[in-house]
Amino acid sequence: MTSLTALYAADGGNRPELKTNLGVDYVIHYKFPTDQAEAEAGFTQLIEDLTRVGLASEVRRGDDSSVLVFVRVASNKYLSTHIYRERVQDWLHGVRATAPEKDVEKEFANDPVTEAERLRMVYLLIAKPKNEGGAGITPKTKQWKQVASIFPLHNHMFNREWIKQSSTKYVLDERDLDQIRNKFGESVAFYFAFLQSYFTFLLFPAAFGFGAWLILGRYSLVYAAVNSLWTVVFFEWWKKKEVDLAVQWGVRGVSRIQHPRNQFKWDYEAVDPVTGEPVKVYSPTKRLKTQLLQVPFAIACALILGALFIFCFAIEIFLSEVYNGPFKTYLVFTPTIILTGTLPMLSAILENFAQKLTERENYKTNDAHQAALIGKIFVINFLTSYIPLFLTAFVYMPFGNLLVPYLDFFAATAEKISSENSVTIQGFQINPHRLKSQMVYFTVTAQVVNLALEVVVPYVKRKVFKEVEKVQSKMTKNGEAETNQDAPDEHAFLQRVRNEAELDVYDVAVDYREMVVQFGYLSLFSAIWPLTPVMFLINNWVELRSDLMKIAISCQRPIPWRADSIGPWLNALGFLSWFGSVVSSAIVYIFSGEGEGPGGDPSNIKTWGLLLSILCAEHLYLAAQFVVRYALSQTDSPGLQKERAERFSMRKRLLEESLGVEATEKPIPPTTRTGEKITRDVLEEQARRISVSGGGTPEQLFWLRQQGMDETIQIGRQLISQAKVSK
Amino acid sequence: MTSLTALYAADGGNRPELKTNLGVDYVIHYKFPTDQAEAEAGFTQLIEDLTRVGLASEVRRGDDSSVLVFVRVASNKYLSTHIYRERVQDWLHGVRATAPEKDVEKEFANDPVTEAERLRMVYLLIAKPKNEGGAGITPKTKQWKQVASIFPLHNHMFNREWIKQSSTKYVLDERDLDQIRNKFGESVAFYFAFLQSYFTFLLFPAAFGFGAWLILGRYSLVYAAVNSLWTVVFFEWWKKKEVDLAVQWGVRGVSRIQHPRNQFKWDYEAVDPVTGEPVKVYSPTKRLKTQLLQVPFAIACALILGALFIFCFAIEIFLSEVYNGPFKTYLVFTPTIILTGTLPMLSAILENFAQKLTERENYKTNDAHQAALIGKIFVINFLTSYIPLFLTAFVYMPFGNLLVPYLDFFAATAEKISSENSVTIQGFQINPHRLKSQMVYFTVTAQVVNLALEVVVPYVKRKVFKEVEKVQSKMTKNGEAETNQDAPDEHAFLQRVRNEAELDVYDVAVDYREMVVQFGYLSLFSAIWPLTPVMFLINNWVELRSDLMKIAISCQRPIPWRADSIGPWLNALGFLSWFGSVVSSAIVYIFSGEGEGPGGDPSNIKTWGLLLSILCAEHLYLAAQFVVRYALSQTDSPGLQKERAERFSMRKRLLEESLGVEATEKPIPPTTRTGEKITRDVLEEQARRISVSGGGTPEQLFWLRQQGMDETIQIGRQLISQAKVSK
Repeated sequence: MTSLTALYAADGGNRPELKTNLGVDYVIHYKFPTDQAEAEAGFTQLIEDLTRVGLASEVRRGDDSSVLVFVRVASNKYLSTHIYRERVQDWLHGVRATAPEKDVEKEFANDPVTEAERLRMVYLLIAKPKNEGGAGITPKTKQWKQVASIFPLHNHMFNREWIKQSSTKYVLDERDLDQIRNKFGESVAFYFAFLQSYFTFLLFPAAFGFGAWLILGRYSLVYAAVNSLWTVVFFEWWKKKEVDLAVQWGVRGVSRIQHPRNQFKWDYEAVDPVTGEPVKVYSPTKRLKTQLLQVPFAIACALILGALFIFCFAIEIFLSEVYNGPFKTYLVFTPTIILTGTLPMLSAILENFAQKLTERENYKTNDAHQAALIGKIFVINFLTSYIPLFLTAFVYMPFGNLLVPYLDFFAATAEKISSENSVTIQGFQINPHRLKSQMVYFTVTAQVVNLALEVVVPYVKRKVFKEVEKVQSKMTKNGEAETNQDAPDEHAFLQRVRNEAELDVYDVAVDYREMVVQFGYLSLFSAIWPLTPVMFLINNWVELRSDLMKIAISCQRPIPWRADSIGPWLNALGFLSWFGSVVSSAIVYIFSGEGEGPGGDPSNIKTWGLLLSILCAEHLYLAAQFVVRYALSQTDSPGLQKERAERFSMRKRLLEESLGVEATEKPIPPTTRTGEKITRDVLEEQARRISVSGGGTPEQLFWLRQQGMDETIQIGRQLISQAKVSK
Repeated sequence: MTSLTALYAADGGNRPELKTNLGVDYVIHYKFPTDQAEAEAGFTQLIEDLTRVGLASEVRRGDDSSVLVFVRVASNKYLSTHIYRERVQDWLHGVRATAPEKDVEKEFANDPVTEAERLRMVYLLIAKPKNEGGAGITPKTKQWKQVASIFPLHNHMFNREWIKQSSTKYVLDERDLDQIRNKFGESVAFYFAFLQSYFTFLLFPAAFGFGAWLILGRYSLVYAAVNSLWTVVFFEWWKKKEVDLAVQWGVRGVSRIQHPRNQFKWDYEAVDPVTGEPVKVYSPTKRLKTQLLQVPFAIACALILGALFIFCFAIEIFLSEVYNGPFKTYLVFTPTIILTGTLPMLSAILENFAQKLTERENYKTNDAHQAALIGKIFVINFLTSYIPLFLTAFVYMPFGNLLVPYLDFFAATAEKISSENSVTIQGFQINPHRLKSQMVYFTVTAQVVNLALEVVVPYVKRKVFKEVEKVQSKMTKNGEAETNQDAPDEHAFLQRVRNEAELDVYDVAVDYREMVVQFGYLSLFSAIWPLTPVMFLINNWVELRSDLMKIAISCQRPIPWRADSIGPWLNALGFLSWFGSVVSSAIVYIFSGEGEGPGGDPSNIKTWGLLLSILCAEHLYLAAQFVVRYALSQTDSPGLQKERAERFSMRKRLLEESLGVEATEKPIPPTTRTGEKITRDVLEEQARRISVSGGGTPEQLFWLRQQGMDETIQIGRQLISQAKVSK
């Protein structure tokens, strides 16, 4: 870690081990089991399997109970064939608009292999199932549970340059995104593109929100309406932008040809109706049945998390606003302690359950699996993030006075426990600022804490682990000796790799989750406090940079997967944008006006008024969405246009090659003369034939009456003049 | 007309003139102006223009002031080139999945030219603008205002067979639809496919509605929910089916390459970014501004039609339920008379206005123009069809008692007029059956009347015109002589053509409109009377057959346009389906229960209850839509699958042709030996080079430590055993 920090320090760190990866594509961290025979057999199998798919390997010491296997492709030509073949496949499936060049070398000269492409291909060789030509090595599963991780090495020179650049400029431009794409793959690049767009779009609500905060105050209808409209514009714009980016990066539709999950279980094999190759099939109705379990799952999540929050909420209200006994200063922290203690645990249990459920749904591809999992995790996140505000806005504020008497239960308990000290109950009054202060907490405190956790915790964790390991090694008394077993010229490099092996695996879903939840606060609750977007704007400026740092320094280099959109998060955004219209309008209706809310008395709210404003808001939202969508559909997207042009010119070229140029050119329109000539020739020929056969069909006779244009005109004029005369 | 009826009569009518079209592709009905010189000049121009684009023509007498120009292509080879070229264009634009055969004759042998294809191509030759290679003849516009109509001749033998078949079987199967498509084009075929699907789908709500009528009674929540769910399923299913049909008919995406409108006015020319050809551009923002006029237009329509209906409604209520004076029996018809007199006129004015507005929007293609026009006409139809029921359900029934006193205005007027007779006002009481009887009127009476009008009116109209003409001809005293100017062998055929020239032009939009309005009654109001779908089922069985008859007998043969969907009507259906959830839930909430409605007193309705039920119903609707859409998306559509397979195999073939077979085959995975060999060769080569240069780069040295798989395994085992020993 220290060596990494050094590199990114101002002096640049003159450490040669960070400047080269020695041609290593992947490092496999092999933690061997205690049984020596098993360990050796597993290791032998690993190296054999790697060699069989054309990978060269070197082995070095890891820590006390692991070795590091360095992997690279044995022959670059072999890798090129694979990459070329993938490009052809892309074209066959319509991902690329143009076919690759026939000449392989020319193709690679025109469109060089990026680091991401190379690493992805090598990873596929390692990870694809054996029957599809890979080594079938999946970390931590069945046969390969000794394989702790498979990771590419960071390109630290690039990372350093990149962090330096991005911290000095305001926006990531296209070139920056292209660089991210080339190094970390489209999946990560889409996240940064999204974050950048979101940040830029936030400028407007931040400015407007600031103005609204100065002039309109809280719970402003105007602010809520503008904010909602903004979410619509942003969402619709991003949908378009996303497609554009996918086209630009040549990955549009790539989600259709994703690689199969190794864990997929199939019912039977059938012939793929599209490619004609055999495919594994799992009955969709069986899956649909399993998917239905999501409904009870979501209900269970809502009940469990709801119960926890209501419990803590009740205690909090009681302690802070009713209770007036001893230790009040300390006791008010009880709910916070309960939440901090139980919520992460509960979330982890539920997420684990979601994982199990998704596995039972048995998806065929990693993408589908991931999307289904994200859907469930979104439900959990939605509940944990927004329940507290829902409770305050729609339970505490309107019904507080009715519900507080029920808190006497706590009073009784408290009296029982501390029978010596008399517990005095102070007169309860709704705290009208509770909602705002909660919102401030979520938009400022929580974001700062979160950011700190993201940066600090992994650092501390690693530090501690390091120390523990050092102590352990010292206890075994040969720590020093072991490290010295490294060849001197490799020592620094190997230490660096050992460090990288200890890092966390980067999961882009975690970063998306954070942003989507933030978008939810903005869409649903920002009418409570119009400064919300300003806070988010500041936060995201830091977030973008800290995420870059996270990938570069505190995580292993991610495997550069391809993607053609931000995937299931798009639906989550759409849902939050829509739901925002409902929640904001309800909040504005309930809280706007003099008193800042109903003050705990539901009779201050007219149910029909509330429902009517929700109904109106939602339909205005849908109408706005329709208009924005239509307006955006009228502007052609440059990416799509380029793609269509490429497809068209490719088709035309192919056509000219195979059909000849004439087919694409217009047929020569017959001139007056040629047209006539054809007619006359045909007619004369017909006349001849008719005179030979003696008579003619009615059709022949019909078309022979006027031979050629001139006669038709002549007869026509006669008919016209006759009609005139007869009148 | 009589000859046509004879053909379709039981005996089959042994009339040879109906059995052949004498090779005529199109008939141009040229009505010459009174000025002879102008008439002859126009005619000459017409024939010259036709000849110039390669069409042969014959002229015959029409009626007193018109001639009939018979047109066919001068050379079939020339037509074939055009058709082949269109097929190539289709492929270039991605409408066809496969390229046409290189050999033109083989292509036409594999995929013969249909009547529809031929007729469409000839029509395009006649109608396309001159700069695009057509003769630019558009009936009734500018230069060509003497051209009354351009129509193909019916294939009566086919029509007869087809009507016979369809009246004896219950459903149109795929073969029938294919036949319609081959004769009348995809545009008409889509209508019949839609009507057939709608009819089949109606079986379920008809059965359920009948059951509901017996058991649940009116305003049943269960019926409304099931009905709404049915509209969702039908709508989503049809969206899928439509795509499937388009693929099957090879027209998917054809709406993208529609032919330009002759009336389109452009701002400037630019280069098409896709095809690289020059295109005419009209600023979309200018168009958007014109399109915004739709909003005041819709509001004006609503106000005008609303005012008319409210006026008639008020009179009706007054006369039928309040007034008790003289002539009551006759006076009750007043509103009906007013409506019958003014509504069609008002609709016509508004539709005319819609037409003007759409022309000002200046669309580039006929399709876009048509779609925009249909959108506006749908608004007018929506208002004229549903306002009466809205007034009864949401004004009369809940607010009747409050509003009736205002009708005293009429009483005063009546008293003034008939001052001698005393007008007695009877005690007003809401008529609880009014809504149901109105619904019965719209679902039974109106449909029957409509059907009758569709069949009978054109017949009568033609009969009358015929008689008038005969009388006119007789008055000019040479009617007989003129008809006898026909060549005897052509007389019967020419008479038949003269009849067809008098027929109406078939407009598929009129038929769609009827069905969409019907779907609206079903979706919005059928909870009022659950027998509604039964009535519609019966009506549509007849409708399907009468529409066939209409095309075959009482209209000119339509020009066989292509289409890839039912177009803008799809949006109308979607809107009605969604709006149905809102309206039905409101009706069920207001009317269900003992009293059959609020009985004119709004205090019987709880506003919050009404709003809550609308809110719930709508969201349940949206949720159901989401689920149905997801479920349907899981089942692959056979048409799309076929298309993807075709595309894939075409690409593969092209690839093999141009790149050789290897490119598509898997690269040979290196065996243990070959893989090793590569590595070893490389390593030995490296070792040699290093020894020559004396030393090596760190990278070379790193990868040289373990030469080949066996050494890696050996060293790995050592490392593992050392770790074990050291513990």
